[in-house]
This record gives sequence, C-alpha cells and structure tokens, in this order.
Amino acid sequence: MKIRALEWIDGKLRIIDQTKLPGELVYLDLDTYEGVAEAIERLRIRGAPAIGVAAAFGVVLAAQKVPPSERARFFEEIDRAINRLKETRPTGVNLSWALHRMRAVVGRNPSRLVSEITRMLVREAQAIMEEDRKMCERIGRHGAALLPEQVRVLTHCNAGALATAGYGTALGVLYAAREMRKRVTVYVDETRPLLQGARLTAWELLHEGFDVTLICDATAAFLMQQKRVDCVLVGADRIAANGDVANKVGTYNLAVAAHYHGIPFYVAAPSSTVDLETPTGAEIPIEERNAEEVVAGFGVQTAPREIRVYNPAFDVTPHALVSAIITEKGVLTPPFAEKLRNSA
Amino acid sequence: MKIRALEWIDGKLRIIDQTKLPGELVYLDLDTYEGVAEAIERLRIRGAPAIGVAAAFGVVLAAQKVPPSERARFFEEIDRAINRLKETRPTGVNLSWALHRMRAVVGRNPSRLVSEITRMLVREAQAIMEEDRKMCERIGRHGAALLPEQVRVLTHCNAGALATAGYGTALGVLYAAREMRKRVTVYVDETRPLLQGARLTAWELLHEGFDVTLICDATAAFLMQQKRVDCVLVGADRIAANGDVANKVGTYNLAVAAHYHGIPFYVAAPSSTVDLETPTGAEIPIEERNAEEVVAGFGVQTAPREIRVYNPAFDVTPHALVSAIITEKGVLTPPFAEKLRNSA
Repeated sequence: MKIRALEWIDGKLRIIDQTKLPGELVYLDLDTYEGVAEAIERLRIRGAPAIGVAAAFGVVLAAQKVPPSERARFFEEIDRAINRLKETRPTGVNLSWALHRMRAVVGRNPSRLVSEITRMLVREAQAIMEEDRKMCERIGRHGAALLPEQVRVLTHCNAGALATAGYGTALGVLYAAREMRKRVTVYVDETRPLLQGARLTAWELLHEGFDVTLICDATAAFLMQQKRVDCVLVGADRIAANGDVANKVGTYNLAVAAHYHGIPFYVAAPSSTVDLETPTGAEIPIEERNAEEVVAGFGVQTAPREIRVYNPAFDVTPHALVSAIITEKGVLTPPFAEKLRNSA
Repeated sequence: MKIRALEWIDGKLRIIDQTKLPGELVYLDLDTYEGVAEAIERLRIRGAPAIGVAAAFGVVLAAQKVPPSERARFFEEIDRAINRLKETRPTGVNLSWALHRMRAVVGRNPSRLVSEITRMLVREAQAIMEEDRKMCERIGRHGAALLPEQVRVLTHCNAGALATAGYGTALGVLYAAREMRKRVTVYVDETRPLLQGARLTAWELLHEGFDVTLICDATAAFLMQQKRVDCVLVGADRIAANGDVANKVGTYNLAVAAHYHGIPFYVAAPSSTVDLETPTGAEIPIEERNAEEVVAGFGVQTAPREIRVYNPAFDVTPHALVSAIITEKGVLTPPFAEKLRNSA
C-alpha cells in the first residue's frame, strides 16, 4: 500500500488534497487548526476515519501555536480549535469521538505544564492514527474471510486508503482479500455529485493494481440484474444503536437493489463509527450540501442556474437491509442491537 | 407549450441542438440525411419519438437532393439514407418503425414520378410528426387521469417536449395534469452520464413554469424512504411483447426502488414503441456508449483516463415492476401481453 491520505511529519499534518485527484497528486502541509478545518469542509480530506485523525492533529496544531508561558490562552485555543473542528461536518461520528479523546487528555491533566500537555496531545493523535491503521487491517482480515475465493464486489464512494489513515475499511477488505490470494474484481459507483468513486476509488484501486470497472450510480441495479455482482461492500459515517447505517448518499439505493436481487450488503467501519447515543437512523443529522455541486459540478454548468436542488450528502440504510457489519472486532450479523452494544 | 424539438420549415428540418442546453437555445436547420443521422448519433436530437420523426424527414431530405430525372439514383439514395439512419441508434423501435413507413411509401408507388413520390414522402413524414403530436396529447390525457389531484412525481431522463414532436410522453402527462388543474410537483433525476434530466427536463419544466427539484440519480431511493414521491413516471425506448421496458439506464433502478417502497411505476410511450417482434426484454439490444461520457463528461476529466467503464445507454425493467403502460390508446395494467397485442 503506497497511498497515505495523511501523515504527521515534522510537526505538520501532510495530506493528499483529494479535490485535485485524479488529475494531480498534490500534498498539502497543514500547520494550523483552521487549515485542517477548511481542508475537512472543502473535502480535501474526507472519509469519516480520516476526518477523525485529521481533527485530532488539528488540536495538536492549535496547542503547538501557543507559547508555553500563556497558560490561559492555551486552554482557550484548544477549546476554540475543538469547537471549530467539530462543526466542519455533522454526520460522521468519528470526528466528535476523536475530538472527545483529545479533550479528555487536557481534562485529565489540568495542572501539568503546557509543554507536557502538548506532548501528550501529540501522542494521543498519533495513537488515534496508529489505531486507525491497525483497525483497517483488522477490518480487512475479518471482512476478507466473508468473501468467496472469487468475487465481484460493488462499492460506492470511497472507503479506502484515501478515507482513513490506513488502507481503508470497505476497500481494506478488498486489499486483505487480495493478500489472501482471493480473486477480486471491483465495480465502482462514480458517486454523484462529487464523484468520489470515479475520482478517488477508481484512482486508488487502479494505482494498487486491481481489476476495476467504473459505472454510473443508477447502472448498479442493471448490473445486479445481469448477475454481475456477488456482494455490495461500503463504509459508514455513522451506525446507530439499532444498526441503521448513515453513509454517502446512494448507499441506501444500493441496499434496496441488493435486497431485491438477493445479494449480500456489507458495511465495513471502525467500531468508533457506532454511536450508541443515536438510537436509530432517524436521529442521525443528514448534512445537506449546496446546489452548486449538482448544477455546476467541476465548473461546468449542466443544469439551469435557477433550479432547486435537493443534495443530501448522506442517506440512511435501515438495519433490515444490512447483511453484516464488519468492524475491527469482528463480523456482526443481524440482529445487530445487542451485538453493537457489546462490541462498542 | 412553447418548445418545439423539431419543425419542418421551407424544406429543411429545424431542430433544437440539445447538446447546447441548458446554456444556450440553439436551432439547427438540417438539409441532408447525413446531417440528420449525425444529429441523432451525437444526441443533438434524442428521445425515441423525436428520433423517429427526424429520421422520416431525413429520408425526405435525401429524396429532395436527387434531380427528378435521375430515377435510378433516387431509389438508391433513399435506400442509402434509410440504411444510414437506421443504424444511428439501436435500442429505440420508433426509428425503424418510422423508416419502415417511409420505405413503404416508395414500395407502394414504384412507377410514379420521382417528384410525386417526393411529395408523398413529405406528406408521410408530416403525418408521422402530426400523429406524434396528437399521440402526446392523448397519452397526456390518459395518463393525467391516473394521477391524484395533488401529486409529487419523480421522472428520469427526458420524455418531454424535447423528446417528441409534441409535448412529450411522460412529461406530456404532467402538462395534461396541469391543464386539468391538478397540483403537480416534480423531482427530476439528473440522469448520468449525459444529464438529460438536469440539462433538458429541468430546463423544459422550469421553462414551462413547473415546481421542479433536481436530484442526483442515487438519491431517488432516499427520497422515497422519506415519503416524498407519490409515483414514478418515465418514457420508453422499446416495450417488448410481454411488457418489459427498455428506457434510459437508471430506469430499472427506479423501478426496483419504487417497488420496494410501494410506489406506482408508470411508463408513458406511444404504441409505436411496443415491439411485438421482441418477445421479452432479454432480446432488446442495449446500446453501449463510450467511456469518455463517464470519464470526462462535459470536458472535465473526473476519473482516471485508463479506467474501464461499463456505460450502457439503456436498461430493461421487467414487466412485473411496471404498474401501468400509458399509450395514446389508453392505460394498460398488468398482465400486459394480451393487451399489448390488442393495442399495437
């Protein structure tokens, strides 16, 4: 695996600017929390796990900026950074989970030296990143065991190396399956409006030497009708306590089509994605993004300027349509509620 | 209704160049059959009924070009034009149906003067166009009667004024419903890869003063989950003898989602779309278009150049998912086979 969506180098957060893919591979070195917040909002870095890791380092960047002598400002700045970072994207839960961990480091050590707390924050962010990498590998192994020796997988959006600090969740399963010498071919939904499937997943899987075919999102059901898909495998931005899954808009559409065709529908995500505080999908806030993404995607006007657009970034797949949830702790099958409670 | 996708003016075929919408409203005057064939291939004119009408005038243009004295060349040119026009798009059946009617005019009148046959060809093409307009109105009336007084309709691609010589098939139903003072709101699938929904249907319905909202194709199921859609209404490029429907790719996806949510799925199309020679959807040839449309739509590269793409232009919706087929002759409900046989 050669792709690293984010790395901590010399006190800065190096990210791949994903808005430039697949045309150019551009790295950005971020050294302020505002830079991290802006990168998350503009989707330079995206994918729930990667957002969590990036936000953790955003807090570190805020801490580093304050001279050790200004103790009161140090705590204020950290608060400001956490609040700013928290509001960048509302749907994923890893973001607030990571920020909660960072805040807890400060909370547990109120009387230490600022320089000490900063070092502890660096270690915590690095731990979150390292856990994310290990989490990917474990999800990969658990998920890959589910797949037959030869398998044609349909995926949506990007739940790969570009969405995590490691080799991905849904795509991590494919990387692990290949390591086990399973023969994997992949269909990728282009994933309108922002085309994360076309721009990121297709690029990432080609880059890693997979047999990949790109389709338009609404072609998925027709592909299933032709018996060309053995399973659907996606990531998740938040999983409610009952197993309802929020993920990139279009995921629910795939789940319905998979159900109709009797094809398993798998969700791969870290257990940090499970939000036991959210009872069902109905309580998950769904981010609505601007009309521009649909009307003039990538700078070309393809719909009337004045048209009204409904552009939710995510949708909710009810647990009844989910065949299995793969986390770093193992494979959960329905009914999910109790298993999610025990594994969180 | 102010929009005319095609008109016959001063011995030329005037069309709206639909590849320029919604940015510009550009008319083209075509005076050769090759020009018509090229316009069909490049989707300057599209929609199965409009393609049939345009092809009929393409044959007229071929006939007009031959001096009346060159009798043998006249028949050759007409053959050449029909063969050329026939191969422009493989899936729709109105095209070959219209060309068949034009060929029959020649076949029935082998010994007439070339100038007389040409006049008869003009009249036949005008009759096809006029019938298409009346057909739209009848489909509109029959379909509108199916809709409740207040209705939220989801449509895909463009089966409107831009797809016919009249006011459309699926959208004709909406125009007619509005004339009956029904309150109609419309959701439009953008319809990747060529965005006929975003570029054409959204433009057309806005132009005609409808309450329209644009969505990405894979958002449709989520909209249904939220109970924001009362019925799905689409056109058709070919209907097999058993009621299976070929239409723009993504239609089957909608049919599956509508079925899952218990929402009626209506198909509106002229009876010339019914092909009794094609027993089931499995025998309908599905046009595959080039990767470029998906990888670099509208001139912007949004996927790796070297990616493999599966890009069928159409898909097949099995008759079991179709709630009703609306033709100019009336509303057919399942089981379709015998009713289609009687109404063709």
